[in-house]
Amino acid sequence: MHQEQRDRTHELLRERGIDRAIFAHPANVTWLTGVPQPWRAGADLYAGGPALVWYEAGAFTLLLMDGHAGNASEFGGQPNCVMTTYQGYAYQAQPAGVANLATALNRVVGAGSGAPIGVETQRLPVSLQQTLLANQPVNTEVVSIDGWLDPLRLTRTAEELDKMRENFALIDVAHSVCDEAVRPGNLELDVWHAIHVALQNSAEMTLPLGNDCTVGRRSGGPALAVEILPTDSFIVDLSTIWKGYWSDSCVTYYATQPSPKQLAMHRVCADALDLAISLAKPGAVCREIDQTVRAFLTDQGFPPYPHHTGHGIGVLGHEAPRITPHSDERLQSGMVVMLEPGIYYPGETGVRLEHAVLIGDAGPEILSTYSLNIPGI
Amino acid sequence: MHQEQRDRTHELLRERGIDRAIFAHPANVTWLTGVPQPWRAGADLYAGGPALVWYEAGAFTLLLMDGHAGNASEFGGQPNCVMTTYQGYAYQAQPAGVANLATALNRVVGAGSGAPIGVETQRLPVSLQQTLLANQPVNTEVVSIDGWLDPLRLTRTAEELDKMRENFALIDVAHSVCDEAVRPGNLELDVWHAIHVALQNSAEMTLPLGNDCTVGRRSGGPALAVEILPTDSFIVDLSTIWKGYWSDSCVTYYATQPSPKQLAMHRVCADALDLAISLAKPGAVCREIDQTVRAFLTDQGFPPYPHHTGHGIGVLGHEAPRITPHSDERLQSGMVVMLEPGIYYPGETGVRLEHAVLIGDAGPEILSTYSLNIPGI
Repeated sequence: MHQEQRDRTHELLRERGIDRAIFAHPANVTWLTGVPQPWRAGADLYAGGPALVWYEAGAFTLLLMDGHAGNASEFGGQPNCVMTTYQGYAYQAQPAGVANLATALNRVVGAGSGAPIGVETQRLPVSLQQTLLANQPVNTEVVSIDGWLDPLRLTRTAEELDKMRENFALIDVAHSVCDEAVRPGNLELDVWHAIHVALQNSAEMTLPLGNDCTVGRRSGGPALAVEILPTDSFIVDLSTIWKGYWSDSCVTYYATQPSPKQLAMHRVCADALDLAISLAKPGAVCREIDQTVRAFLTDQGFPPYPHHTGHGIGVLGHEAPRITPHSDERLQSGMVVMLEPGIYYPGETGVRLEHAVLIGDAGPEILSTYSLNIPGI
Repeated sequence: MHQEQRDRTHELLRERGIDRAIFAHPANVTWLTGVPQPWRAGADLYAGGPALVWYEAGAFTLLLMDGHAGNASEFGGQPNCVMTTYQGYAYQAQPAGVANLATALNRVVGAGSGAPIGVETQRLPVSLQQTLLANQPVNTEVVSIDGWLDPLRLTRTAEELDKMRENFALIDVAHSVCDEAVRPGNLELDVWHAIHVALQNSAEMTLPLGNDCTVGRRSGGPALAVEILPTDSFIVDLSTIWKGYWSDSCVTYYATQPSPKQLAMHRVCADALDLAISLAKPGAVCREIDQTVRAFLTDQGFPPYPHHTGHGIGVLGHEAPRITPHSDERLQSGMVVMLEPGIYYPGETGVRLEHAVLIGDAGPEILSTYSLNIPGI
């Protein structure tokens, strides 16, 4: 489970002369271990801090609150992998997650050699760094390793792609109920509910649901008690998290038949998405894709969309590479990017269409399986 | 908005000789400002770190990502209150939340006097402490203020109680659909969906939903695709977050008529809850309430429940005081506590009942308004 990720990390740290390091960014902890982060509100009520990964000389120790260890059962059985837990909730005593995590971290780190320690300083709390350094020789150097794993996370392993394909299969089910739910008189919330029910029934468990579910005239955002009018387009931009990996998606639906203007918008937006996909090749510069797709729409007289053309996706919903007007990043084989042009007339109507694309030497592969709902097709 | 909270905090910091401090615990940021934390998965994708409150000589500055400022519009207009935002998402450039937050924090803190700075070290990331200290005289003392606000948060202001009452009114709506949804052949997820739909329709917006929704034989946990049998009891333990304040609640329902054993369990559990409520007076020691309620059940031959008898609630779902066997905490007028005895025969059936109680000199006031569904009453 995620051996490739740890191999890449070990290699990088060795090259940079770091023999000990602590990872505290939730995305990196998931990426290094394959263990998802709990997502429910209040999941951290008894935790003493973020889940941590301690690296030392090629071995990885995952440090978790006991209540979160159910997700991690496979991890500890692997080569050079240890899972350590500390007590979170225990009604027999006053909550002591912070102290218990500190004790566990101390034990895992042990007395130090004096060698530098790599630290994700943007995520590790001050108190845990104090714990980390408490048993080390004075003046042990702390090396910031924030962002070091970002380039390693860019291309997906077969194991990650399996999780993402499973996620997009769930998203397909979620989109399948929208055509029926988007009808005059229903509320935005009615559509949201139909989607969440279908998603969770399909997964046979509760799952988080993002992002946008609004009438096109509102251009997106969380669903509200806004009534769908017969003339409305409807933007459904969905994501969930499955085994630690995110999906994303967007299709535009219609309350009745699209107007000629909406029809034209939808078709040209689909063409813009096709164009974006055709440009998504290894070596392509992200800003060039963004600028080309934007120009394709504005050249035909449509207003520019006030958001990115796309973004990477994996252990975070939006991550590198960014398909934006000034991004110098280049696509690589094995990346997964979302592409999502839109056309908006705020207060009147709007269209957005999105697909997930796996970049490959043999051409782009569309991972998202829902229909783009192109009227008349 | 939350002036009383800031007055208490100012007083405490003055007494302890702290003239400058940074708060990074989400619960404290909400409590100090009245501004809720975003709860959706991915809400922090572009944030440079947690929302922060900088205190200096009686003035409070709330430091937020711009995308989260919609929740905070009222804050800045108050005496000694400033809201400062930094740019999070901006498609025109590469994401720079971390750098933007650091710049904003630097500007807010300014050059230092050399006086000590109070820091919530369990929540402030290492990199932000480095930013904080960058423009201060060398050897500026950092004083850990973790937990300092906990005692101040124990008793609720009228403003907080208003938010909590509004929350419990939503929870009442959520429970009102359970009797109908809990029926043979439905899945646990069907009940969960009916609840979430009712809750969000009532609030006219999307809201998070916790905690437990299972057949009684499973004793609680997230809803799954488990079919309800005619003989099942059903535990519905619900929470949501409203204006930054949590609710909690539990009622046990039945798929058909409760068996004589379930009937007895339900009634004695209701008696145990009544007993707990009657003991919830100012000055009561929490462990004595816990032990008395536990003994009330075990003396009648029921197994002890493997969880707390109750807990405080407010800006977190579980907070002080803890109604547990070894808690020396004492109840005070103005506290809100949840009380939730249960009786479980795992694999067979289970009952849990819960109410929210405002401790008062004139006696306890039950804030939760749902029926306890006592069979035959």
